[in-house]
Amino acid sequence: MALKAEIVSIGSELVSGQNLDTNAPWLSRALGELGIATAYHTSIGDDMADHVAAFRIAADRADLVLTTGGLGPTQDDLVREALAGAAGVGLREDPDSLAAIAALFGRRNRPMADRNRLQAMLPEGAEALPNPIGTAPGVWMSIGRAAFASMPGVPNEMKVMFADQVVPRLRLRHWVERVIVHRKIALFGKGESDIEAEALDLTARGHVPEVGITASDSTISFRIRGEGLTLEAAWAQTEETAGLIRRRFGPLVLGEGAVDVADALVEQLKRAGATMATAESCTGGIVAHLVTAIAGVSPYYLGGVVSYSNRAKTDMLGVPAGLIEAHGAVSAEVAAAMAVGARERFGTDLAVSTTGVAGPGGGTPEKPVGLVYLGLATADGVETRRVEIGPEQPRGIIQRRSAKQALDMARVALLARPDRGVSP
Amino acid sequence: MALKAEIVSIGSELVSGQNLDTNAPWLSRALGELGIATAYHTSIGDDMADHVAAFRIAADRADLVLTTGGLGPTQDDLVREALAGAAGVGLREDPDSLAAIAALFGRRNRPMADRNRLQAMLPEGAEALPNPIGTAPGVWMSIGRAAFASMPGVPNEMKVMFADQVVPRLRLRHWVERVIVHRKIALFGKGESDIEAEALDLTARGHVPEVGITASDSTISFRIRGEGLTLEAAWAQTEETAGLIRRRFGPLVLGEGAVDVADALVEQLKRAGATMATAESCTGGIVAHLVTAIAGVSPYYLGGVVSYSNRAKTDMLGVPAGLIEAHGAVSAEVAAAMAVGARERFGTDLAVSTTGVAGPGGGTPEKPVGLVYLGLATADGVETRRVEIGPEQPRGIIQRRSAKQALDMARVALLARPDRGVSP
Repeated sequence: MALKAEIVSIGSELVSGQNLDTNAPWLSRALGELGIATAYHTSIGDDMADHVAAFRIAADRADLVLTTGGLGPTQDDLVREALAGAAGVGLREDPDSLAAIAALFGRRNRPMADRNRLQAMLPEGAEALPNPIGTAPGVWMSIGRAAFASMPGVPNEMKVMFADQVVPRLRLRHWVERVIVHRKIALFGKGESDIEAEALDLTARGHVPEVGITASDSTISFRIRGEGLTLEAAWAQTEETAGLIRRRFGPLVLGEGAVDVADALVEQLKRAGATMATAESCTGGIVAHLVTAIAGVSPYYLGGVVSYSNRAKTDMLGVPAGLIEAHGAVSAEVAAAMAVGARERFGTDLAVSTTGVAGPGGGTPEKPVGLVYLGLATADGVETRRVEIGPEQPRGIIQRRSAKQALDMARVALLARPDRGVSP
Repeated sequence: MALKAEIVSIGSELVSGQNLDTNAPWLSRALGELGIATAYHTSIGDDMADHVAAFRIAADRADLVLTTGGLGPTQDDLVREALAGAAGVGLREDPDSLAAIAALFGRRNRPMADRNRLQAMLPEGAEALPNPIGTAPGVWMSIGRAAFASMPGVPNEMKVMFADQVVPRLRLRHWVERVIVHRKIALFGKGESDIEAEALDLTARGHVPEVGITASDSTISFRIRGEGLTLEAAWAQTEETAGLIRRRFGPLVLGEGAVDVADALVEQLKRAGATMATAESCTGGIVAHLVTAIAGVSPYYLGGVVSYSNRAKTDMLGVPAGLIEAHGAVSAEVAAAMAVGARERFGTDLAVSTTGVAGPGGGTPEKPVGLVYLGLATADGVETRRVEIGPEQPRGIIQRRSAKQALDMARVALLARPDRGVSP
C-alpha cells in the first residue's frame, strides 16, 4: 500500500491568516519528488490540547507526519511536550542537543538563556535532529504506527533539516528508493500553446522522461523529469530530450534553469563583446531597468533615454518632428528613428526602442491600447516589429511584455555574431 | 465561551503542494475581522473517506466549519456527498439550485451538461447558498453541534458567497454583532523604528482605537482598527487618531490606503501643475519606471536619461567630464549636475537624479556598495542628498530604495507649492 503523509503546520499566525504557510506546500512537493503522497495538511495555533489532539489524529491516519514550527524556547512552543503527551511518554534532557545549543551561543558570543535549555528536552525514545543553523533541534520519533519528524518553522532551517536528517531516515526505512530531478529549459519568443503544439510528441502521456510546459511572465519553460537510483542516472535520463528541445527550438532557447530574456541578452552582449542602448516611450524605463538589474552589465549597457514626450523624442533622440507629425508617435517610423537616434547618441553597437499605447486610456480604433512598435538599430540598419499585447491587458503587463520583446529582438540579433568578448 | 472555527480546503492540488492555499488565510482574516477565531486549517485531497473523516473531526472540535472547493460537476467533486455521509443523511435535488444553474447556462448561451445537474443535489436538511457568478451553489447545514458552510474553491466565487450568504447567517445566529474596519495611513521618509518611537502613545497596548505599524518596500503604514455596531460607527472611531497622525507626521504622510511614494508624487505633480524629468545612473531606469507605471502621468513626466556610462552623463546630460574626473561619477557634484542637466534638456520644472554603487561589486572604502547620491533641481537651484542603503543589501533593494528616496525629494519639494493644475 502506498505511504500516506500528513504535514502539520504550527503557529497562531497561520490559523489567524496573518502568515501564509509556504512550508507545507514545499514539503508536499519535496515528498512528491521522493514518491511519497501527502494526504493531509493541518494547521493549528499555540494551544496544547489542540497539539495533542492533532498529533493523535495524524498518528492514526498517516504513516509519516512532518510538523513545522513550535520548537522555539518560548512558552508558545509546545511541540516537544505535545509529542510526549500524544505518545504517552515523559520528557528527558538530551545532552548532545544541550551541548550543540551551548556551542551555537558560544560561536555567536552570546550567553545562553535558561529557557534555551528547554530546547534540549526530548520525548523518551525520540532522537534529536541536529540543526546546524539555528538553536532548535528537531525531533524524530514514532507515535503509534506513524513516524514523526518535527522541524523548525523557519523555512531555511526546515529545508536543511529535511534534506540532511529526514530524507536519509526515510531511505533507511526503504520509504524512498529513487532520485527524481527536474531539468528546466527556458524559451522566449512564442506563446505557450504554439510551443506546446510543436512538442506534442514530448508532452504526450507516457513519454519517458515526462515533459511538462509552464509559462511565467512570457517565458515558457520545458520541465523534464528524470528518475533513477542515483542523481547521475536521474540526470542522464533527461539528456536526450534536453538536446532534442535545444535543437528543435534553436534561437527561442534562453538557457537552462530560471533564466530570463534579460539574462540571456546580457550573456550574448558579453559573448559578442557588444554594447547597447535603449530608447523607450511606452515602456517608460522598464527595458533599461530589466538590463541594469543584472550585475556587471555596465561595460555593455551604456545608457538610454525615456522619451515620454514628443519633444524628448526630438530633442534627446533626434527624431524629426515632421516624422512624428506624419505618422504619429506610435508608429514603425518613429520606433525606427528612436532606435537609430539612441544608437548614434550613445555610440553603441545596437539600440532597441519602444513606442506604443500602454493604456488604459489613449487608444483609438487604428492604434488600440496594447499596440506597441519595437525598433532595433545595428550597424546593418534598422528593423521594426509591431506587437499587440491586447487592449484588455493592464498597463503594467503591456509595458512589461513589450519591453521583454524589445530585449529579445536584440538577443536574437546577437546570436548570429561571432565571439568577441568575455565568454559567459 | 469563544467560538472556534475550522477551515477545510479541498483539492489534491493543495495537498500535493502544486497550488498555494490562499482561501484559508483569507477566510481566517475575514473571520478575525468579525471577532471569530480560527483554530484549525485542514487540507485534504479528492478522496471520499478522507472527506467524511475530516468533516467528522471538524464537527467534533469546531463550532463553525467553512469548506472551500469540491463543489464542481466532476467525479472529483465529493463535498455534497461527503457532507451527507458525515451527517448520516441522504441527498435530494434542490429545484431552486437547478433552476439557477440552468439560467446561468442560458445566459451564457450554452447547453447545460447532465453532470451539472449533480451540482443541484443537497444533503437532506441543508440550505443552498446561491452563487451569482458560478455554477456551483454552496451548502449551509448542521453536522452535530457545528454549522457548516461549504463554498466553491474559486476565490472570487468564495469571497462573494462568504460576504453575501455566510456572514448574514452568522449575524442571524448572533455570532457576529460588531463591525470592524482597518484604516491605513501610509508614510515615507523615515524608518519604521523612528516612526514607531514617535508614536509610542498610539501603539501602546490598550490604546483605543488599536494602532499598529507595518513596513513594506520602504513605505510605513499605520493601521487603525475601528469597531462599532455599524460601519459608520466603526469608521468614526478611527477619525481622531487618523487626524492626529496626519498632523504629527505632516510631510511624511503619503495618503490613505495602499498609496506609494510614486502615487503621492504624481498627485502632487497634478495638483501643482508641474512637469518633471529624471536622470539615473545606478537606479538604471527604476525611477522612470515607477513614475510611468501610473496611468495618466504623461502631461507631467516628460522623460529621462539612463546615463549608465560616464560618456552618457557628459553627452546626454551635459555633465562636465572634468567634474566626473575630479569627484568621481558617484558624488554629490555629479548628482547635482545630472539633475540640472536633465531639467534643462527636458525643459521641466524639476528633475531628480541618482548616482551610486548598486553592487555587488564596485565598492571602495570611501564609496561602499549601497552609497547613493540623489539630486533635485528646481527653479530655485539644486540640492543633493547622500544615502547609504547598506553594503549587505542586494542590488535590487539598493536600486529600488534609492529610487524611491529620489521620488520623495521631488514629492516633498512640491508640497510647498500652490495649486496650479488639475486637482487630484
